[in-house]
Amino acid sequence: MSVKIVIAPDSFKGSLSAKEAALAIERGIRKAAPDAETVLVPMADGGEGTVDSLVSATQGTTVQVTVRGPLLGDVQAEYGILGDGETCVIEMATASGLILIPEEQRNPWLATTYGTGQLIKHALDSGYRKFILAIGGSATNDGGSGMLQALGLGLLDASGHPVPYGAQGLSQIRRIDAADRDVRIEQSSFTIASDVVNPFIGPQGASYVFGPQKGATPEMVEELDKALHHWADIIEAQTGIAVHNLPSAGAAGGLGGAFQAFFPTSVRRGVEIVMETCSLHQHLQGAALVFTGEGRTDAQTASGKAPMGIAQAAQKKGVPVFVLSGSIGQGVEALFEHGITSIHSIVNGPMSLQEAMGRTDELLTQKAEHVMRTYLAALRG
Amino acid sequence: MSVKIVIAPDSFKGSLSAKEAALAIERGIRKAAPDAETVLVPMADGGEGTVDSLVSATQGTTVQVTVRGPLLGDVQAEYGILGDGETCVIEMATASGLILIPEEQRNPWLATTYGTGQLIKHALDSGYRKFILAIGGSATNDGGSGMLQALGLGLLDASGHPVPYGAQGLSQIRRIDAADRDVRIEQSSFTIASDVVNPFIGPQGASYVFGPQKGATPEMVEELDKALHHWADIIEAQTGIAVHNLPSAGAAGGLGGAFQAFFPTSVRRGVEIVMETCSLHQHLQGAALVFTGEGRTDAQTASGKAPMGIAQAAQKKGVPVFVLSGSIGQGVEALFEHGITSIHSIVNGPMSLQEAMGRTDELLTQKAEHVMRTYLAALRG
Repeated sequence: MSVKIVIAPDSFKGSLSAKEAALAIERGIRKAAPDAETVLVPMADGGEGTVDSLVSATQGTTVQVTVRGPLLGDVQAEYGILGDGETCVIEMATASGLILIPEEQRNPWLATTYGTGQLIKHALDSGYRKFILAIGGSATNDGGSGMLQALGLGLLDASGHPVPYGAQGLSQIRRIDAADRDVRIEQSSFTIASDVVNPFIGPQGASYVFGPQKGATPEMVEELDKALHHWADIIEAQTGIAVHNLPSAGAAGGLGGAFQAFFPTSVRRGVEIVMETCSLHQHLQGAALVFTGEGRTDAQTASGKAPMGIAQAAQKKGVPVFVLSGSIGQGVEALFEHGITSIHSIVNGPMSLQEAMGRTDELLTQKAEHVMRTYLAALRG
Repeated sequence: MSVKIVIAPDSFKGSLSAKEAALAIERGIRKAAPDAETVLVPMADGGEGTVDSLVSATQGTTVQVTVRGPLLGDVQAEYGILGDGETCVIEMATASGLILIPEEQRNPWLATTYGTGQLIKHALDSGYRKFILAIGGSATNDGGSGMLQALGLGLLDASGHPVPYGAQGLSQIRRIDAADRDVRIEQSSFTIASDVVNPFIGPQGASYVFGPQKGATPEMVEELDKALHHWADIIEAQTGIAVHNLPSAGAAGGLGGAFQAFFPTSVRRGVEIVMETCSLHQHLQGAALVFTGEGRTDAQTASGKAPMGIAQAAQKKGVPVFVLSGSIGQGVEALFEHGITSIHSIVNGPMSLQEAMGRTDELLTQKAEHVMRTYLAALRG
């Protein structure tokens, strides 16, 4: 029988891109149901892989740009142009990400979002005015100051000199010189993909919650929070917008706050942006079932991961969702009420994480085949 | 919806008995389908667990008997009486098994099936005349001579003295004195559960194929085969039956040959006997699906393992069979044509064998739940 099946996995980090995962699942489904109609929709949750996923889904292109990395050295970054020819999609991590710095050199006191600003400037120069920004994986805690500096805002100290890049410069800022600001910003629209709802400062803010994973010591965390507090006061004085307790202002070391204060910005859950851009809702029309997948499924999956967003969309249409996962953690039963039908680890016996990651492609195909056969058994019964 | 589901796993060796496995699977199914009608049929393949399975399936009892172990020390053995009150089921390994001897003491030159004969004698004394013998896991290579000795057959050397127990005595046998043989044997019926079709002697015989795993060195293997050859000649002279190349005569170190030559015996695949005794075919009537399971599923599963036997029976009735397995090996796709619908490892992420074995109960329940949900999704679609 011919059934329409939507294959919409996230990437399996460290093993397969979302597109590779979708192809592996498709192979397995075809073994069980050679005449199934498959629709591949590689997903992302607004983190790593978002550009790949959206560019692939819309048949867009990518642009390579050399920018300054988080510690100011040159890095080769890229951004995507969607198939509509007018939307840019940028992962801030490609220019200012933690992944660009060896672990022992990570230092959120120094790291800057300058390169992210350069990417936006490059896109503006190329004529684009519509932006999707995926801001996960940052190395920075600079409150978005570097990005603003790259886009022409002068952040000046008491003597009227530009302050240094990174969080280290924030406490010295006395005023913002907006004379040379890039006015094309105001003609643009920015959609921030963020699942982080933390505020700019305080115990739930950027420094305290995300500082340590970026290399901050407990003492540094305190200094970072004070620096962001001062910076929030300056921002409020300049724009009238108090980012201090603003939801999502603490995303990407405060970059979320800078966007919301200075740019025409809306913040949305990453997976929603991805689903919309990939036309997932249209693809679900007439689908008999959905296969999705991710590296690990646990209670965290409920908070904005790709399989969860897909399940919620599918649930509205009554379409079952099978999750193929590298590993299954605690509390997954809670996902059933959100539209996830069943979850299957791709691991086919006791093995190390290393072996599982090395065999993800093959294991994903095998698991998809057996899950599909299980499903078909009921149809044929 | 209420569906009838047959739950018929083998044991998960080292983790769960077949009954425990069936209960774990049932718990998972009930989570997904609280009103399912479940029928538990703990299985076995004629090896370890056969007594447990058959006694449990028929609500029979067990009998404890102290007998001589494979190296003649006392061991506490047991046999089962089925629910019909007239059939005995005996695992030879409980009296003469490899598992009873520490690895460094294993010696098929010495090991004897005497204790197995004692168990049969005890059952005969108790009035039983119908026997099912599971003969896997033997420590012996004595051609069943010990069992015959325990049942009153004199195996005499050139001087008319009884030969020593074990394979070491075989070459000295010059004649069999059947004067004191247990005549109740001839009023009895013996069904041997064996998947081993190897002959008594030769390169495919008991000594060459199974001797090494019982502790035989290459030199000893040659001696063992010669001893069995001599013993086969004696048997032929006495009974007119040439066990030399008889199928299944090489099972359990030649015990299979002794049974066929001296006792009213039929040999059947273990899983068939178990399925018949457990009334599996009747239970399959009206069943929507079958869950089975085993420790490991691979190409070997096709050769007489419990899930395979079940699948073949279910296939005839068009009932799908889901296998829940500790681990999945190579070549399982070949099982599809024999009635196995799909195979699912219970392991839910990268983990060691030790962890998987420690968590078998919980993992089996989780996997059964998710497989059942996958199946039900199609019915509700």
